[in-house]
Amino acid sequence: MYFEEPAMFACTGYAATAADARLAPFSLDRRDPGPRDVRIDITHCGVCHSDIHTARSEWPGTLYPCVPGHEIVGRVAEVGAEVTKYKVGDQVGVGCMVDSCRECESCRAGLEQYCEPGARFTYNSPDIGGLSHTFGGYAQAVVVDQDFVLRIPEGLDLAAAAPLLCAGITTWSPLRHWGIGPGKRVGVVGLGGLGHMGVKLAVAMGAEVTLFTTSANKAEDGRRLGAHRVVISRDADAMKAEAGRFDFILDCVSAQHDINAYFALLRLDGALVQVGLPEKPIEVQMFSLVGKRRTFAGSLIGGIAETQEMLDFCGEHGITADIEMIAMDEINEAYERMIASDVKYRFVIDMATMPKAA
Amino acid sequence: MYFEEPAMFACTGYAATAADARLAPFSLDRRDPGPRDVRIDITHCGVCHSDIHTARSEWPGTLYPCVPGHEIVGRVAEVGAEVTKYKVGDQVGVGCMVDSCRECESCRAGLEQYCEPGARFTYNSPDIGGLSHTFGGYAQAVVVDQDFVLRIPEGLDLAAAAPLLCAGITTWSPLRHWGIGPGKRVGVVGLGGLGHMGVKLAVAMGAEVTLFTTSANKAEDGRRLGAHRVVISRDADAMKAEAGRFDFILDCVSAQHDINAYFALLRLDGALVQVGLPEKPIEVQMFSLVGKRRTFAGSLIGGIAETQEMLDFCGEHGITADIEMIAMDEINEAYERMIASDVKYRFVIDMATMPKAA
Repeated sequence: MYFEEPAMFACTGYAATAADARLAPFSLDRRDPGPRDVRIDITHCGVCHSDIHTARSEWPGTLYPCVPGHEIVGRVAEVGAEVTKYKVGDQVGVGCMVDSCRECESCRAGLEQYCEPGARFTYNSPDIGGLSHTFGGYAQAVVVDQDFVLRIPEGLDLAAAAPLLCAGITTWSPLRHWGIGPGKRVGVVGLGGLGHMGVKLAVAMGAEVTLFTTSANKAEDGRRLGAHRVVISRDADAMKAEAGRFDFILDCVSAQHDINAYFALLRLDGALVQVGLPEKPIEVQMFSLVGKRRTFAGSLIGGIAETQEMLDFCGEHGITADIEMIAMDEINEAYERMIASDVKYRFVIDMATMPKAA
Repeated sequence: MYFEEPAMFACTGYAATAADARLAPFSLDRRDPGPRDVRIDITHCGVCHSDIHTARSEWPGTLYPCVPGHEIVGRVAEVGAEVTKYKVGDQVGVGCMVDSCRECESCRAGLEQYCEPGARFTYNSPDIGGLSHTFGGYAQAVVVDQDFVLRIPEGLDLAAAAPLLCAGITTWSPLRHWGIGPGKRVGVVGLGGLGHMGVKLAVAMGAEVTLFTTSANKAEDGRRLGAHRVVISRDADAMKAEAGRFDFILDCVSAQHDINAYFALLRLDGALVQVGLPEKPIEVQMFSLVGKRRTFAGSLIGGIAETQEMLDFCGEHGITADIEMIAMDEINEAYERMIASDVKYRFVIDMATMPKAA
């Protein structure tokens, strides 16, 4: 008796081999699809700030080689024998997770992102099938358990739908959890990859949406995206006039900023949810929270069921991200432009530009 | 035609006349009761940290002379013609507020403490009837609109009930608002005036209560007050073992401390509510909140209706504060001992010791 090596296939991706290395072509192994797996030929992958933080070891624990990418869309190329949810040719996506324990309270509640032993993330998590750690979507293909594959509604542009898998669900989940809809006044802070999705989704949910931006030249763009009101956050008088106005504020800024100025804009029992992830601690003045029983919360992406719900909603409302398409070999330049906030509002890699062999 | 001066009566109190002055006897005017007013002969007044912060101008905006005190109990001595709720001899209390606008959304919701134009607080707020600002309970008498007078259940010791009017409602209101009861795991951080009420109330509400204290020598006292479990927060291993355990944490510490260590103890969707009021900003690590969609909130005392509800609950359960009675002329020494955390757990002034004339 002997153990067979798990069967593998090779594909080409782009990887960072060290924190200070430029991303470059890389040949990676994927497991052959098991009975419940779906092999996806990736057509596009969005570029998220988390990709940069991980590739460059700005967050702790990066495993190299690091293949980032968790805004994956493509078409089903092969399915395992027990796969019932998808068939070859389906238009599908994969977000930030590829598996979870499925047994803990969070998983049973459909909140796999909060899996107690920890979800298996799409990149930089321990992998299965003899592979050391997961490789993300900067690659020609990916193999994922059907339960973590999402359906992309027909009618949505596949490339522009890619950012829904992270930027979309990251903003959707808190908006839903805090009951946003008609009659609610929502503030969205920051017009970037997350913020522009927050504006589009909150508007489509029926809320009155106010964009807060430091840049007067983003005001017009905010209105084009659907914001009913735009406030320039550097204008102290304008900020003061908004005091106590909002039921909910979605803070999408990961740079250091004075969050207490936004607490002051919440009404009684209002909530500010931070989805940007500043590296340094946020300084909270307790008087800002206590005065109106305000809450400050964090939120991490969203569960699989709510990601599908978000995608279906986007299909019904024709919502996708505003993107700028790049070729695979432009990724390093794209990272620099993202750091300079020079993108409206998400880069998406056209995977047809991947070199055929690394 | 002329305007009559509002009728007044004089009584003796204790006041600070400057931020650096010791409190000393002071003759103050009260308005004669109007048609809806109740005159209360004060028997006891609890001593709250807010009294010190205000008397010493540690918080902005103190008006001098400053007569602190907002944990007032006593007996009704006189009622106005339209007063229906109280009669002479009733055992009553006054907490942190003596009036509010009664028209804003917060007031209509019974949350007068969040009154939009601002509640009239028991001391250091603009007053009515020709008086410049409100004087608190370090005095022989007080005159209050009947709607802001609370009934103290018979059977409760009047002196030990005094701290319920601030320390009691400050901890009760968030416990109720966040739905604490049987099946909930509650942490209470800090065993002082607020914390010891938090433990008693959460236990009586049916929760499993864990006290977090820095002092090993408070463990026994915590259990005597009803805490089911005690964790010494300086013990890093003990803290680590509590990770993800709590539905709710009531943080009663106003000294600087690492709040992120407590966020880590919350389960999915758990909330930490801060009722201590640190002067400096609290540093929040976003990863501590984001990982389990945890919320951080503030809460300010409680509304009049919920204060009465709390008092009635305390009457049913025989709950009062643990107090140390002092004479009026011991107040300055009591302040020093409070600053040194040398009180178990609340000083209460015996108003019978007030000098008869200032």
